[in-house]
Amino acid sequence: MGIQKEDVIELNLIKKIEIKETKFEIKKINLPQVDMIMTGGTISSRLDYQTGAVKSLTKPEDLLRFYPEISSIVNLSIKNPFMTFSENMASKEWIKIAEIAQQSLNSPAQGVIITHGTDTLHYTASALSFFLQGLNKPVILTYSQRSSDRASSDAHLNLICSAKTAISDIAEVMLVGHATSNDDFCHAIRGTKARKMHTSRRDAFKSINAPPIAKITPEKIEVLAPHKIRDNAKKVKLDAVFNEKTALIKFYPSQNPEILDYYTKEYHGIIIETTGLGHISESWLPRIKKAIDNGMMICAAPQTIYGRLNPKVYTTGRLLEKAGIIYLEDMLPETAYVKLGWVLAHKNWKDQVKEKMLEPVAGEISERIEY
Amino acid sequence: MGIQKEDVIELNLIKKIEIKETKFEIKKINLPQVDMIMTGGTISSRLDYQTGAVKSLTKPEDLLRFYPEISSIVNLSIKNPFMTFSENMASKEWIKIAEIAQQSLNSPAQGVIITHGTDTLHYTASALSFFLQGLNKPVILTYSQRSSDRASSDAHLNLICSAKTAISDIAEVMLVGHATSNDDFCHAIRGTKARKMHTSRRDAFKSINAPPIAKITPEKIEVLAPHKIRDNAKKVKLDAVFNEKTALIKFYPSQNPEILDYYTKEYHGIIIETTGLGHISESWLPRIKKAIDNGMMICAAPQTIYGRLNPKVYTTGRLLEKAGIIYLEDMLPETAYVKLGWVLAHKNWKDQVKEKMLEPVAGEISERIEY
Repeated sequence: MGIQKEDVIELNLIKKIEIKETKFEIKKINLPQVDMIMTGGTISSRLDYQTGAVKSLTKPEDLLRFYPEISSIVNLSIKNPFMTFSENMASKEWIKIAEIAQQSLNSPAQGVIITHGTDTLHYTASALSFFLQGLNKPVILTYSQRSSDRASSDAHLNLICSAKTAISDIAEVMLVGHATSNDDFCHAIRGTKARKMHTSRRDAFKSINAPPIAKITPEKIEVLAPHKIRDNAKKVKLDAVFNEKTALIKFYPSQNPEILDYYTKEYHGIIIETTGLGHISESWLPRIKKAIDNGMMICAAPQTIYGRLNPKVYTTGRLLEKAGIIYLEDMLPETAYVKLGWVLAHKNWKDQVKEKMLEPVAGEISERIEY
Repeated sequence: MGIQKEDVIELNLIKKIEIKETKFEIKKINLPQVDMIMTGGTISSRLDYQTGAVKSLTKPEDLLRFYPEISSIVNLSIKNPFMTFSENMASKEWIKIAEIAQQSLNSPAQGVIITHGTDTLHYTASALSFFLQGLNKPVILTYSQRSSDRASSDAHLNLICSAKTAISDIAEVMLVGHATSNDDFCHAIRGTKARKMHTSRRDAFKSINAPPIAKITPEKIEVLAPHKIRDNAKKVKLDAVFNEKTALIKFYPSQNPEILDYYTKEYHGIIIETTGLGHISESWLPRIKKAIDNGMMICAAPQTIYGRLNPKVYTTGRLLEKAGIIYLEDMLPETAYVKLGWVLAHKNWKDQVKEKMLEPVAGEISERIEY
């Protein structure tokens, strides 16, 4: 058994490795099969002690070496299509991940775990929620905010809870990670309702406008919200398309509405992060009308992040709705952007964009609850 | 005493008016003077029972008629430069409010209360925090999320707490309003640290990355954070300028960096809402360098809203910082936008934009705390 010199620095971790590996040997034969898609990010990085920067693990096996606990819960098969920090991901990578996930979900694997950088993880989670249609098994996106060699690393608990969730009966696209800043339990957050809400905390991801789907400890899973149930006999369909001529803009005071003209030239759809219940300065109205007349799909999502839009309360909202803006209820702006790009990529939905945007596909619009 | 027919619908409200008006008459002589700048928004609106829409009060006196409680705490003098819902406000209105506030602050008035729509209230609060230099007395921005004729209106408590804070010793620009969804107490939030975080809840405004300055009940003020102290002898200086060639853009996956070229043509500064610790796709680097080479000031603020940027942890951050992006620590993107427009409007600061952006003027950058 080869233990690297630098591993000896952390005595607790070494201890865990020995204990878990014993269990691993005993249980191995009966462990459920789970596929892992490793895409990069902090969870598959470690500190380079020479430069002081964080650098990627070069081999998928390294992940099991750093996080051996997961091997006591599931038999992991690791696929590694690319390695990148998530700020560099674009729709091409979303599509690649969805393709590999589909293969795994339609194989004997019990579920899929995707390891991913945190920066744009919630965008990818939304994309997979729309791209994988008729989900049969759990699809888990997990991450870490602190690299494996930091004592405060969140990777160990996140991976254990991800493995537990991947073999559960919850057939949803979910983010699994720390629910609190303690190292005690995780939440499974619906892919379309997750948002990174802190630059550095371990519990950076929050479930917005909806309860988490489940609370997970290494011992058990407590279900907190309704969800789709596993059906291993079902086959997942891939609908992984994205129209890159989609934009997301945030409205702010004194913003020049000429930006709409810029996008109208080449783009097909815009999500505007509107203020309050769904407002934009009345001075924008003529250009909004012009853009919509030219075939632009304009949707409104809440800049406040939390809460639901309601264009009917104030005059501005009524005027904007009358001009043709589609009000996306309580959909997160990031989710709205991904969904609009996905909807606009379907040429046969050309005349039903509004209906498609307002029809919940993956829990992206919550049922109305009075706050 | 003229009571309108429609007022009789709500018996409780009528009762309150009678009680408070008695007190008002008794206490009037010894009450401190406070100026109110009424600018519109829900707090100065009521439901139009004929159309079902919310409409503005037409006369400032109506505000005292609907919210008589405030007259038992202070003698209000109401100024009403304009009436607008806050989604329509732009830098012109910020400057107008600052000018009137300066006059009041340099008069015998003990403090200033500004009533304002909620949609862009936090942008105005930031603007006043920078525009009013060397503050001597409290400047309170207050609001309501529900109009006066709804049983759940938050206006009564918000106005009482605003009046209490306006005569306190806290010489800061502050938002005062509901701290919880109960009608129990208010928080005074620093103008540069406030953000509307819910479309409809009464406690929509949160203090981000900093504790509230104070907790306020109708009975007492409990100070929660360090603040500047009242000095009635001091005179406030007005520095109310804004460069409208300032933009705020949010980075998202698959976003085309050509948007930077669009802004570089005519604009002088951009705040980019970056992901995570301060990242943008590496594919943006050439255009970022080009924009900066052409004299554009580009600053980074956190898209996560909560937390602090740190460009030193990952390669992407290091490259972006090296390219000349100014990392604004934990400054809110909305505050960063207002500050950049204010800094860029000072021609004599042309060579010190970075220093000015990173020098805290009104608590916009919090001291480092480990989360």
